[in-house]
Amino acid sequence: MFENVKICAGFRFAGVHCGLKSADMLDLALLLSDCPATAAAVFTENRFPAAPVLCGRKQIAAGDKIQAVLINSGNANACTGHQGEVDVAAVAEVLGAVLELPRAQTFISSTGVIGEPLPVTTILKGVELLVGDLEKDAVGNAALQRAAQAIMTTDKSPKIVGVEIETSMGVIIITGVAKGAGMIHPNMATMLAYLLTDAEVELETWSAMLKRVVDRSFNRISVDGDMSTNDTVLALANGVSGCSLVRESDLEALEDGLLKVAQELSLMIVKDGEGATKAVEIIVSGAPDAAAAEKICRAVANSALVKTAFFGQDANWGRIIAAVGYAGVEIEPELVNVSFDKVRVVSGGIRDPHYREEDGAAVLQKPEFSVKIDLQSGEDEFTLLTSDLTHEYVSINADYRS
Amino acid sequence: MFENVKICAGFRFAGVHCGLKSADMLDLALLLSDCPATAAAVFTENRFPAAPVLCGRKQIAAGDKIQAVLINSGNANACTGHQGEVDVAAVAEVLGAVLELPRAQTFISSTGVIGEPLPVTTILKGVELLVGDLEKDAVGNAALQRAAQAIMTTDKSPKIVGVEIETSMGVIIITGVAKGAGMIHPNMATMLAYLLTDAEVELETWSAMLKRVVDRSFNRISVDGDMSTNDTVLALANGVSGCSLVRESDLEALEDGLLKVAQELSLMIVKDGEGATKAVEIIVSGAPDAAAAEKICRAVANSALVKTAFFGQDANWGRIIAAVGYAGVEIEPELVNVSFDKVRVVSGGIRDPHYREEDGAAVLQKPEFSVKIDLQSGEDEFTLLTSDLTHEYVSINADYRS
Repeated sequence: MFENVKICAGFRFAGVHCGLKSADMLDLALLLSDCPATAAAVFTENRFPAAPVLCGRKQIAAGDKIQAVLINSGNANACTGHQGEVDVAAVAEVLGAVLELPRAQTFISSTGVIGEPLPVTTILKGVELLVGDLEKDAVGNAALQRAAQAIMTTDKSPKIVGVEIETSMGVIIITGVAKGAGMIHPNMATMLAYLLTDAEVELETWSAMLKRVVDRSFNRISVDGDMSTNDTVLALANGVSGCSLVRESDLEALEDGLLKVAQELSLMIVKDGEGATKAVEIIVSGAPDAAAAEKICRAVANSALVKTAFFGQDANWGRIIAAVGYAGVEIEPELVNVSFDKVRVVSGGIRDPHYREEDGAAVLQKPEFSVKIDLQSGEDEFTLLTSDLTHEYVSINADYRS
Repeated sequence: MFENVKICAGFRFAGVHCGLKSADMLDLALLLSDCPATAAAVFTENRFPAAPVLCGRKQIAAGDKIQAVLINSGNANACTGHQGEVDVAAVAEVLGAVLELPRAQTFISSTGVIGEPLPVTTILKGVELLVGDLEKDAVGNAALQRAAQAIMTTDKSPKIVGVEIETSMGVIIITGVAKGAGMIHPNMATMLAYLLTDAEVELETWSAMLKRVVDRSFNRISVDGDMSTNDTVLALANGVSGCSLVRESDLEALEDGLLKVAQELSLMIVKDGEGATKAVEIIVSGAPDAAAAEKICRAVANSALVKTAFFGQDANWGRIIAAVGYAGVEIEPELVNVSFDKVRVVSGGIRDPHYREEDGAAVLQKPEFSVKIDLQSGEDEFTLLTSDLTHEYVSINADYRS
């Protein structure tokens, strides 16, 4: 499935089963750069940040370069107190020793059950397996796919995107790998994403770029705002392509590519949302200000009744209107228009006189469509990608201890 | 089931099928006082208030006494623009004429599908049926139960509560009838409640009392804040008992009784939440201020992942902690304690050392239990009643056009 994904130079990958998850499911991944890479990151804003987030924040704040990223699924190392941080340090120490890297150049992420102590011994055993794998088949798509699989929790499939970009310095590649999150508000399933490039970029530029990109991608799916204890987006630039990007046009090309990778991963996350059968773009326009647009957009995108209606392929615009109405924004009901794709459903706050139920139903039957809400009260807008709420969502989350 | 419910004097009830709902389901209810009653009400804060809410607000603001309340299910008369208000007026006009009451003394509520024009002719035909019923069997429990049934939408059973109260002026009765609402955030299924008493109370006192009572009952289930287009609580005091309450102790007794009725109806609504199998009280204490307590309480009570864990009888305290963490309140993670009923699960932000999984699981298996979250950072607290999120919720809302 990912055979043709572009993979940036100077990175090796491995994914193994060490015993955190049942059966032979892969549960430990390594992303390894050939040299220390410039590192930027965006972390969860949850007030209970997990131990690996607390440790990662310190590393990123210190401006450390990162060379090795170890990610385990099956255990979040969250709500584990001081011991959790001690465990991260222990794992990082061993990982660094085995790979002959300074501890500061190793980065640890975790996802899985909250509140259980990190099984350090199990993970250290896994580190040995990973290092063994590095000798064999660690370059290329199959290895990357194993790593992508090892970070999954309730995801159905691994998420990998790669793009090639022409710059004045030559061709560079950006490769992204991510794991998803349940697609319902409030969401606490962890989102992890790793954006890798073989370009060389200055740290401050790279950090600012990542923040802008995250804001227009991972923060535009209906998971953020309700961040999990472990959410992390890490971006590494190792410079192995030899292309050092400083020109404005090159940096723009890099940012465009990074955004494309991040947006494609976001779409994959939404489509693979727990039990999801639809990916729906909610577009609020004509808002008096950006905050109002965002509030209304989130109210609609997170509405369980709207999301179950999507699942039922029911063009139930009343639920959309009701969500707009309780978003806590002063609006003028008699100005609001709503469309499903190009089908105008509501004009001036009431059913459009030309709207035919079958036209709305036809849109709702598509796997991807948009809901446009025009407030006609200003110039600001906001967009979110959301999914439907299904029986399978309930099954997954009633049974899965996350 | 409601044979023994206390019914206040001077009220008659009727419920008929007029054709708004399919088959022979009752869909039109009348609550009729023998004389004009002092009327207070609390309405939805949704920015798309339905036509009957717009009309009702004007009546209540004018201080009009109310004698007849007509409630239809099957159509919300919401997002129907100016025509919606014209339709309410037309129905009220005919209702008043038939009952020989001034139009101002009739009150109309609607619940059901949003955005469809109100089928006025169908309803007027129903009014005739109702008036016919008044002649027959309109006093007592069977009649009240028919009325309670006629206002249901996805409710499984009618909701009626009655209490008898001793006052210095004699015995008075408060009778309440309500229809429920889906039990998930964000909720747009309409909640309607009618609180009736045969006491006599001064309007200003009655209004203030109702607001306080609603704030401690219907606003404490996880539906408010996300109010539907039609939510209405109407309280009528007709004075037929001959007890005019002015003494402070009598008014306190009245308020206690009103609160009891409202809280019991609230519990019924939660228990009958769409597909609900659990009623769970979320208690946040030790908060630095009331707003913080409420924010955290709502984040937990509205969390789909927490609610699906309740359904799965999974003592998944990690999801609760995660919801506390994203509520947007500054907290000190290392002070937070969490208990399921009396079982301490989390102490100081991490798993309590004495906690045993089987003790938590035993609590979660109960149909009603509490989740206590102590922030240990102040004196304020907030409580909400919520339910679980089930397969049936999805089925109901994917299929039901509300």
